[in-house]
Amino acid sequence: MKQYKILLFIADGLGDRPVSKLDFKTPLEAVDKPNFRELLKSSLVGLMDPISPGVVAGSDTSHLSIFGLDPKRYYKGRGAFEAIGAGARLKGGDVAFRGNFATVNDDLIIKDRRAGRKIEEADELVRELNEKIKEIDGVEVKFYHGTEHRVAVVLSGKGISDKISDTDPHEVGKKVLESKPLTSTEEAKKTADIVNKLTRRVYEVLSASTYNKQRVEKGELPANIILLRGAAEYEELPPFESYTKLRAAAVSATALIKGICEQLGMKVVTPKGATGGLDTNYLGKAEEAARLLREYDFVFLHLKATDAASHDGNIEGKKYAIEMMDKMLGKILDQFGSELVIAVTGDHTTPVEVKEHTGDPVPFMIYMPYNTLVFDSVRDFNEREVRRGSLRIRGLDVMNILLNYSNRAEKYGA
Amino acid sequence: MKQYKILLFIADGLGDRPVSKLDFKTPLEAVDKPNFRELLKSSLVGLMDPISPGVVAGSDTSHLSIFGLDPKRYYKGRGAFEAIGAGARLKGGDVAFRGNFATVNDDLIIKDRRAGRKIEEADELVRELNEKIKEIDGVEVKFYHGTEHRVAVVLSGKGISDKISDTDPHEVGKKVLESKPLTSTEEAKKTADIVNKLTRRVYEVLSASTYNKQRVEKGELPANIILLRGAAEYEELPPFESYTKLRAAAVSATALIKGICEQLGMKVVTPKGATGGLDTNYLGKAEEAARLLREYDFVFLHLKATDAASHDGNIEGKKYAIEMMDKMLGKILDQFGSELVIAVTGDHTTPVEVKEHTGDPVPFMIYMPYNTLVFDSVRDFNEREVRRGSLRIRGLDVMNILLNYSNRAEKYGA
Repeated sequence: MKQYKILLFIADGLGDRPVSKLDFKTPLEAVDKPNFRELLKSSLVGLMDPISPGVVAGSDTSHLSIFGLDPKRYYKGRGAFEAIGAGARLKGGDVAFRGNFATVNDDLIIKDRRAGRKIEEADELVRELNEKIKEIDGVEVKFYHGTEHRVAVVLSGKGISDKISDTDPHEVGKKVLESKPLTSTEEAKKTADIVNKLTRRVYEVLSASTYNKQRVEKGELPANIILLRGAAEYEELPPFESYTKLRAAAVSATALIKGICEQLGMKVVTPKGATGGLDTNYLGKAEEAARLLREYDFVFLHLKATDAASHDGNIEGKKYAIEMMDKMLGKILDQFGSELVIAVTGDHTTPVEVKEHTGDPVPFMIYMPYNTLVFDSVRDFNEREVRRGSLRIRGLDVMNILLNYSNRAEKYGA
Repeated sequence: MKQYKILLFIADGLGDRPVSKLDFKTPLEAVDKPNFRELLKSSLVGLMDPISPGVVAGSDTSHLSIFGLDPKRYYKGRGAFEAIGAGARLKGGDVAFRGNFATVNDDLIIKDRRAGRKIEEADELVRELNEKIKEIDGVEVKFYHGTEHRVAVVLSGKGISDKISDTDPHEVGKKVLESKPLTSTEEAKKTADIVNKLTRRVYEVLSASTYNKQRVEKGELPANIILLRGAAEYEELPPFESYTKLRAAAVSATALIKGICEQLGMKVVTPKGATGGLDTNYLGKAEEAARLLREYDFVFLHLKATDAASHDGNIEGKKYAIEMMDKMLGKILDQFGSELVIAVTGDHTTPVEVKEHTGDPVPFMIYMPYNTLVFDSVRDFNEREVRRGSLRIRGLDVMNILLNYSNRAEKYGA
């Protein structure tokens, strides 16, 4: 059987609910999508629960699941994936923390848990920390700046553990906490000790920083401490190619998603003008995907604009992003042709009127470039219509379905 | 988002099959249910497998699963849950047995495995055992009367194990068995030893009991031994509130279900006239549920009548119980209003012509008090019609779905 190449197109937060201002149509229902309609003639469709029914997925847990990796095994807490989203590339056994730049007095009593939130000098402060604190007790330390006051801190070395308590007391007026081991292992004791030394060192470096002196002169709060929480050990993700046999590339402009794809060993491309927002270069991303399809077996095309619009409650924006999704599919068909398996779905539902992730299932479709299959005769790709399709799957099923219908699956058993 | 309260209404053994005497309609199909019809306008519906497709669930494993606890982890054998149904409240590590009052001669040869089955003095005999046998070798012993000849025995203490063999030879004319350790651990040896000493003590106490002397005088068989089987360690159930964040109450008249709910830390109420049978106080239970909904986030309403009718092969009885279910929903809507999420399902299928549990999936529906969702347009709640809905879930999904649609779910990931 001919093996086809695979395009997996995930629009972040694609799933939605009926919107009162759209006469109770969902955004997917409200947009005419001629390229989708064409593909649906040779497709299987249905609903996908990224994790399992009702579970409100994050983008991290959902993408892991869709890439075939059970988050119950690979997702040990937000710290590690927050660090990946902030640019860290982790090794198995690394322990990562979520952190806040914060303001404390000399007694380490917290005055502001976010040091005013907007910290223009954050990148410089993080660079300074990385220059001056490279290790504690033989364990490597790295700092990464996320957005605003958010930082990630990664410890790398032998004999460390994520079974330690936060230094963040989560309350102004309280003192920065001592980290404590949460189990009686040597690893936990050692790691808590390192974190406490690290906290003291961070305070010394940041207090002495000229950037903080400038902040104080400007009347701003100094970002003179990092409060740590959510220690999480990173469980090494296996290379995507090792378990799918697919040479894979990804097109994305979103730090967290790019990070996950890089950790999986995919080639990751962010085309010019791709922003992760509504103003992204939709057709540029599609062109890049078409280009990569010539070279790779599997191309993952990620669009953040749908989720960005949803979180902003921007109904017209979400409609526009969906319109552009249809044009992106058209562009790929124009440039690469239809001789490939194409799956389209979301990583979770973010209803534009809710503005947050919900646990509703997401529409899913898979187009096959051959006519010898009992297809689901569904006319449109939206939350209502796909229910007439035959698929009711979970995120963990997606890669198996793609491998099967691209004639690339290996037999399980004899 | 507004967080809604949740009613979970489980009719025991609700699922059924086409009944020849009902022109091959199922009982749910044969009953007009106006309140269900009304709720279905804003509902998702489908089929639920309490454990997984085809598995014949018991009420214990099914309720665990529906409450979000995997029976593979929490259900270690019938002994523990039989004891809970007989009134025991267990601690993690307790070892419980199912037992029969039986009749033996002086050589412990079994004359009757159930001591005639009807044992009017059973409560008194159990009380006497509890007074006279409080511990063996430092391990606490408690006896509980179930129904008829059935008793449960619970051992509490350190260093005990459920890896021991039965004393019940399951055959008349055989001698009561010595319990033997099934593993080479000290715990198993110690527990088998305790069980053998216990069996001897039980024989002494029961043989000397005046209640047994009266039985013999009446020409009845003395209940002079307890045959033990199905040793099961109790795995501590986590408080329901700890993993759902829901303050929860239950309305039930069924010992096993009440026991499970109490072990989960729910407030449990049995309204006046609630019997667990077809003669139960249906509307009294509904009123109690409506009352509890004012105070609690989550109310679990359990109805046994459907299962009781099914086990009796009582077709008209099952129809009547279903009719009353509809009235119960009406009563709750009258008293509390419709501003809540309502799920209705069964814990398993007990076809009224089979009279036993089967592994068929059970109809499931969840009503939402808002109109911004793509609902399943299904006209009636029965085994045939619900297949047109979008849900095909497992028991373990139920709580996640309830939390999601009541806007109470926490995000898994970021």
